[in-house]
Amino acid sequence: MIPNWLRQRAHLTPNRVALYDDTQSISFAELHDRTVKRARQFVYLGVKKGDIVAILMKNSIHMVEVIHALHYIGAIVLLQNVRLSIEEIKWQLDHSGARFVICDAPFPDERVIEWNEFIKLRERDGEWQTMYHLDDVATIMYTSGTTGKPKGVMQTYGNHWWSAIGSALNLGLHENDCWLAAVPFFHVSGLSILMRSVIYGMSVYIMSSFDAKRSNELILQGKVTMMSAVSTMVQQIIQQLKQPYPPSFRCMLVGGGPVSQPLLHSCANWNIPVYQTYGMTETASQVATLSPDARHKHGSAGKPLFHMGIRIEKDGHQLNANEVGEIVVKGPSVMKGYWQNEKETNAVLKDGWLYTGDIGYMDEEGFLYVLDRRSDLIISGGENVYPAEIEAVLLEHKAVKEAGVIGVADETWGQVPHAFVVLYDGTATEEQLKLFCMSKLAKYKVPKRIYIVDHLPRNATNKLMRHKLKKWVEEA
Amino acid sequence: MIPNWLRQRAHLTPNRVALYDDTQSISFAELHDRTVKRARQFVYLGVKKGDIVAILMKNSIHMVEVIHALHYIGAIVLLQNVRLSIEEIKWQLDHSGARFVICDAPFPDERVIEWNEFIKLRERDGEWQTMYHLDDVATIMYTSGTTGKPKGVMQTYGNHWWSAIGSALNLGLHENDCWLAAVPFFHVSGLSILMRSVIYGMSVYIMSSFDAKRSNELILQGKVTMMSAVSTMVQQIIQQLKQPYPPSFRCMLVGGGPVSQPLLHSCANWNIPVYQTYGMTETASQVATLSPDARHKHGSAGKPLFHMGIRIEKDGHQLNANEVGEIVVKGPSVMKGYWQNEKETNAVLKDGWLYTGDIGYMDEEGFLYVLDRRSDLIISGGENVYPAEIEAVLLEHKAVKEAGVIGVADETWGQVPHAFVVLYDGTATEEQLKLFCMSKLAKYKVPKRIYIVDHLPRNATNKLMRHKLKKWVEEA
Repeated sequence: MIPNWLRQRAHLTPNRVALYDDTQSISFAELHDRTVKRARQFVYLGVKKGDIVAILMKNSIHMVEVIHALHYIGAIVLLQNVRLSIEEIKWQLDHSGARFVICDAPFPDERVIEWNEFIKLRERDGEWQTMYHLDDVATIMYTSGTTGKPKGVMQTYGNHWWSAIGSALNLGLHENDCWLAAVPFFHVSGLSILMRSVIYGMSVYIMSSFDAKRSNELILQGKVTMMSAVSTMVQQIIQQLKQPYPPSFRCMLVGGGPVSQPLLHSCANWNIPVYQTYGMTETASQVATLSPDARHKHGSAGKPLFHMGIRIEKDGHQLNANEVGEIVVKGPSVMKGYWQNEKETNAVLKDGWLYTGDIGYMDEEGFLYVLDRRSDLIISGGENVYPAEIEAVLLEHKAVKEAGVIGVADETWGQVPHAFVVLYDGTATEEQLKLFCMSKLAKYKVPKRIYIVDHLPRNATNKLMRHKLKKWVEEA
Repeated sequence: MIPNWLRQRAHLTPNRVALYDDTQSISFAELHDRTVKRARQFVYLGVKKGDIVAILMKNSIHMVEVIHALHYIGAIVLLQNVRLSIEEIKWQLDHSGARFVICDAPFPDERVIEWNEFIKLRERDGEWQTMYHLDDVATIMYTSGTTGKPKGVMQTYGNHWWSAIGSALNLGLHENDCWLAAVPFFHVSGLSILMRSVIYGMSVYIMSSFDAKRSNELILQGKVTMMSAVSTMVQQIIQQLKQPYPPSFRCMLVGGGPVSQPLLHSCANWNIPVYQTYGMTETASQVATLSPDARHKHGSAGKPLFHMGIRIEKDGHQLNANEVGEIVVKGPSVMKGYWQNEKETNAVLKDGWLYTGDIGYMDEEGFLYVLDRRSDLIISGGENVYPAEIEAVLLEHKAVKEAGVIGVADETWGQVPHAFVVLYDGTATEEQLKLFCMSKLAKYKVPKRIYIVDHLPRNATNKLMRHKLKKWVEEA
């Protein structure tokens, strides 16, 4: 048990700036005051400890208030990706049993409370969570999986705490640090910045959506010293850049897939200290991080954070250095499990070890190399896209008999999904199928190309051979 | 569960310097290699997980090897104050049930293994503690109490971990930090530096005993950036100082009682950034720390570390700001309890809150002021001295009928003990009683003056009124 983070932080360093956006800055004391007001409004609504409340918002100071306010009550925060389709969002609300969803834009659901209405609510005294139990669930984030149905990752206070501490032990803690949050708070890469903020007493500069030009301004003016990004963001940053980054900027933490060699070279030229990282929702962010002084380890995701153990396994046996197998990780930032999904939880959590499904190896010095994310995972502009989920939607269309989805290299997004379908009859066109997907899926999940074919490549046990589909694309 | 600290550290930053002394420096990889060798020698000796092994050594690289080696096996390390009397040391060995005591100098006990003999031992493979369970006891340190008999404080891996993390969240973490360890490792102020070292990946400069001139050299040369001290050490440092400290020196952490206003002013003049701290063996070091930017809070011990809660209680009720009562603290660095002493454990640990026995208050802003350490505690040169313990020894002398001990202000040591005794007859002299104490007690506990008197001041319930004794000294 440790003291409520924001409350303790406001007590220890009340006047330090907690949050900036383009129009204002607020101190930890102010953030705390606002949070208590929001918490009182939630109590008025009837929200109690243990309730699940969803948030469907873009990055903003308001969103931060809502997250901390729910934790002040001890409610569980369900963070939802605003880019998901209505159907996907409703599915999560239903599955989680969320009582409300706080939105910053209209959304068609009876559980919705729009921010503009929320702030008009009256207030009521509540029982505050002045101490956090590290084993309690703080947040839920749904991720899709190979089976198609999203799984609600339960992240505890302890998971977030250890993740923040592990990051600090690796990157250091400077009193003047300010972290640019241009990745969404509904992803763990963004949420973890907010957790670090209250734990470290660190300022965060909030961007509602990524703007390369503005990011460069803030960094060149010395206003931010650290930033989280994915490769495509770094690419855009470099396209906009006219002068090298100053020494005050000390860390560009890049997740969501490896950074290409040419991009790494550009970064070095522009004095951008890139820390490549490997992490996932299930580990409350970073598992391993490669520091710039280990740049000679091309393609590596670095060494584990201090609190994490990593090993490579195959057929239940731990492998030696340089042998390729499944990446298995252990440590106190590993999730508690999937929300109301014992089967999937037991499938990945064994004796405290998380079986990531990712394929890789460690070299003699213990540097991790990730070769393949979760066998068939597509990472498009930093968003995880699971082929199985898209295939399931395609199969819902009455004309589709079989479907296979793969990731195809893309200059802007890293990867984009392409689909192959076998039809019952000849009635559906590529455009029709895309429109159908559009109505069911987030835009970034809709296949950029849908190829109508006679058959899909399958092996003897009828399993789809995705690597063959990749060949088909190359040949096309 | 988190990875074995030294092992993980040697894996993550093998080439970084772990330890310096005046003749050498060794990297984390070397420290790990040496530690494994020592661990194998302990296995040869028959030491197993859960065994208690005592260490009776002055600060040295060897001592660090022994501590980490015992943790490599999962043995519990009993740290003993080398200044204690033979009788006191043997009592601790007996009470703890230690199997061995590793000494760097001859000591008359059958459990002793001298370092020079230890290093000649053969080696044997063992089962290593590759993960630490945070609830396991890592170290035991005996502290004396008001009842006279020393109590063995059980510090878990978690206690040390949280203490290190809380300190980093307050003081920051810079990659070039090097901490000067001039306080003994057998005190928590010294041991906590070693724990921080492996957790942070921070260099430590080891001094076998405090040397003000050498400390100044190291700091002026920029070789060390942080230091732990007690007031008397800071005084000596300033007496030796001829030029102000450089900006590279960023923290003088001063514990063991408040720093006087004149000394604080001298420190400001010499550019010594003093962080006054309040902590104890039972909290694995710092509870609260006052940063230099809060210097206007004269006499305060600062605000709690991030993971700690503090409240002031009287008669079971929590007091408001500025009301004086007992200081009660809670948090994950609070000890597991006293070794095989349920009674004393239950007397101080209630519902996770540690009743420190110290008296103080908190102001409106939450700054802690410590008015009296454990009612009658004497702090002499940073060492805790309990009157009851000295009184018990005096009463063992056949001529002594009654005894009362108090702390008297002393320019060099802060405080020194003075004793008042009532004799059965007139045969014992002050010198004889001092010699008797010398044979039973550590030198710093031997009363500087022993006054032979007719009676002691007692209240209606026959309780010794120590404040009256203080008046008697002033009048003498």
